[in-house]
Amino acid sequence: MDIDKIEIKEIDMDLMGKTQQRLDNLTKPKGSLGILEDLAKRYVAITGKENPELKNKVIFTLVADHGVADEGVSAFPQEVTGQMVLNFINGGAGVNVLAKHVGAKVVVVDMGVKSNIDNDRVINKKIGNSSKNMAKGPAMTREQAIKSLKAGIELVETELKNGIDIIGTGDMGIANTTISSAVVAAITGQEVEKITGRGTGILDDAYKNKINVIKKALSVNKPSPKDGIDVLSKVGGFEIGGIAGVILGAASNKIPVVIDGFISGAGALIAYTINPKVKDYLIAAHCSVEVGHKITLDHIGLRPILNLNLRLGEGTGAALGINIVEAGLKILTQMASFESAEVSNRKE
Amino acid sequence: MDIDKIEIKEIDMDLMGKTQQRLDNLTKPKGSLGILEDLAKRYVAITGKENPELKNKVIFTLVADHGVADEGVSAFPQEVTGQMVLNFINGGAGVNVLAKHVGAKVVVVDMGVKSNIDNDRVINKKIGNSSKNMAKGPAMTREQAIKSLKAGIELVETELKNGIDIIGTGDMGIANTTISSAVVAAITGQEVEKITGRGTGILDDAYKNKINVIKKALSVNKPSPKDGIDVLSKVGGFEIGGIAGVILGAASNKIPVVIDGFISGAGALIAYTINPKVKDYLIAAHCSVEVGHKITLDHIGLRPILNLNLRLGEGTGAALGINIVEAGLKILTQMASFESAEVSNRKE
Repeated sequence: MDIDKIEIKEIDMDLMGKTQQRLDNLTKPKGSLGILEDLAKRYVAITGKENPELKNKVIFTLVADHGVADEGVSAFPQEVTGQMVLNFINGGAGVNVLAKHVGAKVVVVDMGVKSNIDNDRVINKKIGNSSKNMAKGPAMTREQAIKSLKAGIELVETELKNGIDIIGTGDMGIANTTISSAVVAAITGQEVEKITGRGTGILDDAYKNKINVIKKALSVNKPSPKDGIDVLSKVGGFEIGGIAGVILGAASNKIPVVIDGFISGAGALIAYTINPKVKDYLIAAHCSVEVGHKITLDHIGLRPILNLNLRLGEGTGAALGINIVEAGLKILTQMASFESAEVSNRKE
Repeated sequence: MDIDKIEIKEIDMDLMGKTQQRLDNLTKPKGSLGILEDLAKRYVAITGKENPELKNKVIFTLVADHGVADEGVSAFPQEVTGQMVLNFINGGAGVNVLAKHVGAKVVVVDMGVKSNIDNDRVINKKIGNSSKNMAKGPAMTREQAIKSLKAGIELVETELKNGIDIIGTGDMGIANTTISSAVVAAITGQEVEKITGRGTGILDDAYKNKINVIKKALSVNKPSPKDGIDVLSKVGGFEIGGIAGVILGAASNKIPVVIDGFISGAGALIAYTINPKVKDYLIAAHCSVEVGHKITLDHIGLRPILNLNLRLGEGTGAALGINIVEAGLKILTQMASFESAEVSNRKE
């Protein structure tokens, strides 16, 4: 499998138009269900399924550690990453609660946690025991970056055997807003200050330090903005590579992907840089409090569905986004038409 | 029952603070679930229930006709109101689909449909067979306005016997964006042009006509801005009175109310003018495409949860809003704490 040669088809614009016509014939004024209608027709155009149902909703929560945590960029100690993996499999984390709320399955993946996790409920795709400190050199080798992308694609292809109607992406990893800011700065060329937020809630001094660390990482590594794999290897992380891989794998299999917040956005940006065709398969669940997220979505050309001041990650926003997509599909497939309900249509 | 003497208690701010403390101890950075956390603590403060569950979700869809439809203010013929009642009880309308999606029950109420509806699945609270044409005189008598408010309160008190954990409001009635604009103009004092939208999708000439009709109704009737019952009787409608009554009844019974779009907003504005204490019991589901809706919410001081370009009404947005409230409550009651999950808390 060559990452550059993954085939992603155009979505079916004719079917999208036909689906809008169907929506226009339901018992409501044209277009009055706004984004629900947009999501329904996009889903149909992506999958080619005219009467879709979301039976299998899968949220991939990808976990990894980051060497740059050594620079004091997070309010939480690094061991939280491994501890949270156990929380995920025990069902106590935010993403578990919201995934259950919307009927989605959470697939927990170790992409590169520092500690060794020996638990058969965690999928082992470990690329390494934490990435390296990007402030001092590349976060990983180019080979590791490619391996992380392939691991993401494999996750989709393995889970496809159980059926997947929609995918949500999620992440966990102490210091991963730091690497996401570096990725977004590298690709968009925006100033580091404009795309760096306070992550888990760092205070002023730590925030200044975080910005300096990101600037240093960019100047030490000089990632090439048009080469997604180069950016990923120099200033990315294993879970960001995995998320980008999940997106590439989903798009090549005609599965819509609901991306979560800032870290998923950085993953989407890597995937988009590798193959811009992924854009039409992406649905942005929400706009995160993290300031870089909006810039990321704007760069790809995505409009977020929700704006709930979330900044947790894990796939929490993706879960809620999936629920809105499902609402749109039910409108398409379950509402009565003017004819079937014997309701008069508009006068003009 | 005297509308002016309905007792509405302050919500419990101590309990709200205590609930935020509980939220802060869950395995996530403080405040990182944004509006979900706000909704959870508000729900607890309203109801006094520390571990709430939304077992009984009720959406009241109130239906009425409006004499002002004679002025050609809608793109749809007036008989659609009665036809839609049948669509509601047959489960084919947008609100049915979305209510089912979120596990809510739809209670369909005839507040004043022009035709006589004889169906035991429709609650009969008919105040009259359509209101009168407000462009020529008051839409209803003051007695009818009070009767419509009381009918709304009774709806809540009757349904309370089956249990209600949360209420959503909804509406249907050809020409009801026209009366809502008149209500909002009367109470807020804003220019009619700024609060009048295209409703079900009228074209330019009809839109100009709609604005003129609203201005005429205001000048003919001169509603008193501080007297909610006066505004309701002169330029309101039976379903708007019913919605205001549902809100008063809910607040006096410590039940949170998720209000839908522009028509529900006008109902909320009437309730708020009668008793401003209802404000703390209101949750604005979404910001409608109808331009007057945002002005209505700003006047009361509400921030909408969702922004999905909806403009259907019926309670469709309220259904989705209820689902987000439920997500917040599950976060509060189902997530693990740092202690129970053995996850390290922040360093500082």
